[in-house]
Amino acid sequence: MKLYSYFRSSASYRVRIALNLKGIPYDIVPVHLLKHGGEQLSQLYRTLNSDGLVPTLVEDADGADGPHVLTQSLAMIEYLEEIHPTPALLPSTPLDRAFVRGVALAIACDTHPLNNLRVLRYLVHELKVDENAKNAWYRHWCESGLAALEVTLARDKRPGKFCYGDTPTLADCCLVPQIFNAQRLKCDLSAMPTLMRIYENCQQLEAFVNAAPQNQPDAEA
Amino acid sequence: MKLYSYFRSSASYRVRIALNLKGIPYDIVPVHLLKHGGEQLSQLYRTLNSDGLVPTLVEDADGADGPHVLTQSLAMIEYLEEIHPTPALLPSTPLDRAFVRGVALAIACDTHPLNNLRVLRYLVHELKVDENAKNAWYRHWCESGLAALEVTLARDKRPGKFCYGDTPTLADCCLVPQIFNAQRLKCDLSAMPTLMRIYENCQQLEAFVNAAPQNQPDAEA
Repeated sequence: MKLYSYFRSSASYRVRIALNLKGIPYDIVPVHLLKHGGEQLSQLYRTLNSDGLVPTLVEDADGADGPHVLTQSLAMIEYLEEIHPTPALLPSTPLDRAFVRGVALAIACDTHPLNNLRVLRYLVHELKVDENAKNAWYRHWCESGLAALEVTLARDKRPGKFCYGDTPTLADCCLVPQIFNAQRLKCDLSAMPTLMRIYENCQQLEAFVNAAPQNQPDAEA
Repeated sequence: MKLYSYFRSSASYRVRIALNLKGIPYDIVPVHLLKHGGEQLSQLYRTLNSDGLVPTLVEDADGADGPHVLTQSLAMIEYLEEIHPTPALLPSTPLDRAFVRGVALAIACDTHPLNNLRVLRYLVHELKVDENAKNAWYRHWCESGLAALEVTLARDKRPGKFCYGDTPTLADCCLVPQIFNAQRLKCDLSAMPTLMRIYENCQQLEAFVNAAPQNQPDAEA
């Protein structure tokens, strides 16, 4: 498989973790979000992914139907789960799967989209927001999203070493990149002991370490 | 089942469509997003849903584990698909499921979150953005998200009467509420013939009509 990825992209990071956890070999094709006016917006990239967003997962296929092109990080991870069920990234009961997906979506739909590069750019270029207000925006959505998640996980019986039980799931694939972003932008995570404990447990696993931005072929200082 | 819902909430609308398509009986519990300082932010509601967002799906359960509480519209629809597989809202192959989930997530992660009530409020109250700039923000994200989706669907072989083939899926559950919002805010949809054709086909089905905001018990003019 080929993963079109940017080292710091949170959505790319999620899929790298999932691929590593499942032990699926893949090649990174770097897409630089800042250089050349944003390589993700190029006509060439958009023939692959009309959203103009990373990541894109491409699987070479035998036969006439050409390579398989997948968009959307969570759709990719569900796909990987279906074609490579072991180790499982979703629990075995529908109710518990809904819990894990709920945690993942709380990050992917309610927290991360507000802090995306293109959104920050709109704030600066169209709304003429200054650096302080832009950073306050970032921290507001990141901290309020994670604070709600802290409550969700702290009051539920299901989290263990990880968001669900003692093995990593789709939820951890989403949590770790979001915490990474939060730390990079100096968000206040002091009131989130459950999230931080899970984050630290994830950092003990090679699959997470090898997926981290600083360990990517396109990493920059 | 009980669905805590607001008539105009796009995420609630998605789940109402899915429940209707599957013929699962449910009661609406209205949560007013504007009255009483936002009922979704009340302490009582947050004991159910710590995100303070609608919808919440509650299933009364026999036995000691109490009622089942689900958050996140897409996690709910995946759950409904697992416990009531017929009629199916996801295709039968992993690759096609990834396509349908990709369309749903392009709306749920990349388009809708930027136009949420709480985001528009932040623009007005914190960033002091005026009405025109707020509406331009809304249209920008709504139109650019839908324009990308138009390309995705127009160039793929899989869409038929609906986003995938000739029966509705999870993708249509997400598309219809987003088009409804777009029309309400007077977005320009003239360059999106594929999306509009699918939208009109959905409007022929009772499941979609009965889920529409104007047909909810808490509807307002």
